Amino acid sequence: MQKIRAAIVGYGNIGKNVLAALQAAPDFEVAGVVRRTSSLQSLSTELQGISVVDHISKLDRVDVAILCLPTRSIPGQAKEILALGINTVDSYDIHASIWELRQELASVAREYQAVSIVSAGWDPGSDSVIRNLFEAIYPQATTYTNFGPGMSMGHTVAVKAIPGVKKALSITIPAGKGKHNREVYIELEDGYDLEEVTQKIKNDAYFVKDNTQVTLVEDVGALINTTHGVHIIRQDETQSNTEYGLEFSMRINNPVLTAQVMVACARATMKARPGAYTMIEIPVIDMLYGNREELVRRLV
Amino acid sequence: MQKIRAAIVGYGNIGKNVLAALQAAPDFEVAGVVRRTSSLQSLSTELQGISVVDHISKLDRVDVAILCLPTRSIPGQAKEILALGINTVDSYDIHASIWELRQELASVAREYQAVSIVSAGWDPGSDSVIRNLFEAIYPQATTYTNFGPGMSMGHTVAVKAIPGVKKALSITIPAGKGKHNREVYIELEDGYDLEEVTQKIKNDAYFVKDNTQVTLVEDVGALINTTHGVHIIRQDETQSNTEYGLEFSMRINNPVLTAQVMVACARATMKARPGAYTMIEIPVIDMLYGNREELVRRLV
Repeated sequence: MQKIRAAIVGYGNIGKNVLAALQAAPDFEVAGVVRRTSSLQSLSTELQGISVVDHISKLDRVDVAILCLPTRSIPGQAKEILALGINTVDSYDIHASIWELRQELASVAREYQAVSIVSAGWDPGSDSVIRNLFEAIYPQATTYTNFGPGMSMGHTVAVKAIPGVKKALSITIPAGKGKHNREVYIELEDGYDLEEVTQKIKNDAYFVKDNTQVTLVEDVGALINTTHGVHIIRQDETQSNTEYGLEFSMRINNPVLTAQVMVACARATMKARPGAYTMIEIPVIDMLYGNREELVRRLV
Repeated sequence: MQKIRAAIVGYGNIGKNVLAALQAAPDFEVAGVVRRTSSLQSLSTELQGISVVDHISKLDRVDVAILCLPTRSIPGQAKEILALGINTVDSYDIHASIWELRQELASVAREYQAVSIVSAGWDPGSDSVIRNLFEAIYPQATTYTNFGPGMSMGHTVAVKAIPGVKKALSITIPAGKGKHNREVYIELEDGYDLEEVTQKIKNDAYFVKDNTQVTLVEDVGALINTTHGVHIIRQDETQSNTEYGLEFSMRINNPVLTAQVMVACARATMKARPGAYTMIEIPVIDMLYGNREELVRRLV
């Protein structure tokens, strides 16, 4: 079997988990890791024996690049890598601009005969597949996506950007029907007033619509927990029979699950025609390892 | 907008619900109903104004035929209709021979430039999509599919085939980890012994592995209830952290949900290349009504 050669671009929390997921997958081979500093001195033990470089062009025969980078740097990096004829997968998570990203990458991908799967995480990502399937098979109803409890990366980054915040953590608490409460834990810089900083957080666009509670703590790090979850429910609210309905829920390790979704989609890039796709546009069978005919026999 | 013209082939419980689902879908037009007796005398009120014929060739411009027939007659009917260049959808439910059906229909479909989606119900069908997605995003774990409580058509048919059984109903009760108990209700023909018939039911291939309870009742009809459900769970059983895992569950009206899945897949046949497919091979977005670009914007 010809293995799929995958490069990991960016080596933070997600990148480390992508490495583990690739090593556990029978059909993948790690082509290497791309990071800004490729000095061997800083290599952690799990990277021993793996090519670590500062540019993807220095790696041999890469089929697909898994972009484990901050969301804001995805569009530029993805375009550059697609232009080398290498497929890309990312977990770009700004819902409002996913469509624009897909359009931008689609033209580059088609020009260079490559495939890009965008927003391949759990939400956006596998949750999007669930919402789509629910709507297809149960058309007259309403879907609610309830997140948490769990750490929200996007909200945490928004709090950290507020002057006076030294460290921060934002936890999402589901409040039902797609509404959420926010529990924000912060450490303050010297000379800042808790009350003023709290007001700035509550007025931030990320928080202004939600019930937000801000708590000053001595050590934000002690509160870090990567467990997260989601509960998606679809019901026909015009019917009195609320017994009927569809539900999906999961409790997960957030970076572990994100990495697994990205690897599944890296596999799917090998089966699609040149272009850029979201997960709802990809047959789920293409995300699985194994012979297609045997998968149909086993899973249908 | 050019509407999709769908024919309903077979007009029992599923066919009636397919008619309702097509009439509720903004992108479909009912081309007509095909049934063995097309005599207008027996037409129920919901069929007034709809072409009812005894052969599909008598209907005008059919894009897709939705086969609401007993499973055993699906292969023959599907081949005949595909050979007219008309797409087909069925909810063929004998798990062990789905792959063979797909192979047989694939060659006819390709020859006549048509598309067939096989086993498009809820299990096999939408549950298969869930199982596939779960395995893709959470590879090291075990999936259990727990059905019910609800009436099982396959098991009911098996009981009815046993000599001495006048009427029957088999209810599936989930017993956890993919195991099921069976509650069988029967009316007896005169001259048969309950104990002997009970033993024959318990020794039947459909029941021999399950804990089965047989009860004699005066009126099986009074017990009929179309509510059914499923609970699919995927967990890594080697881990001590059983908090992590994925779950899907639904409670549904069985023929209503089956009909909705079939209509969603009838829509998807219009977007696939000639050939035969199971639901896991079809992008979920193709099952939805609406502009593709708007669906990506809204659902991802």
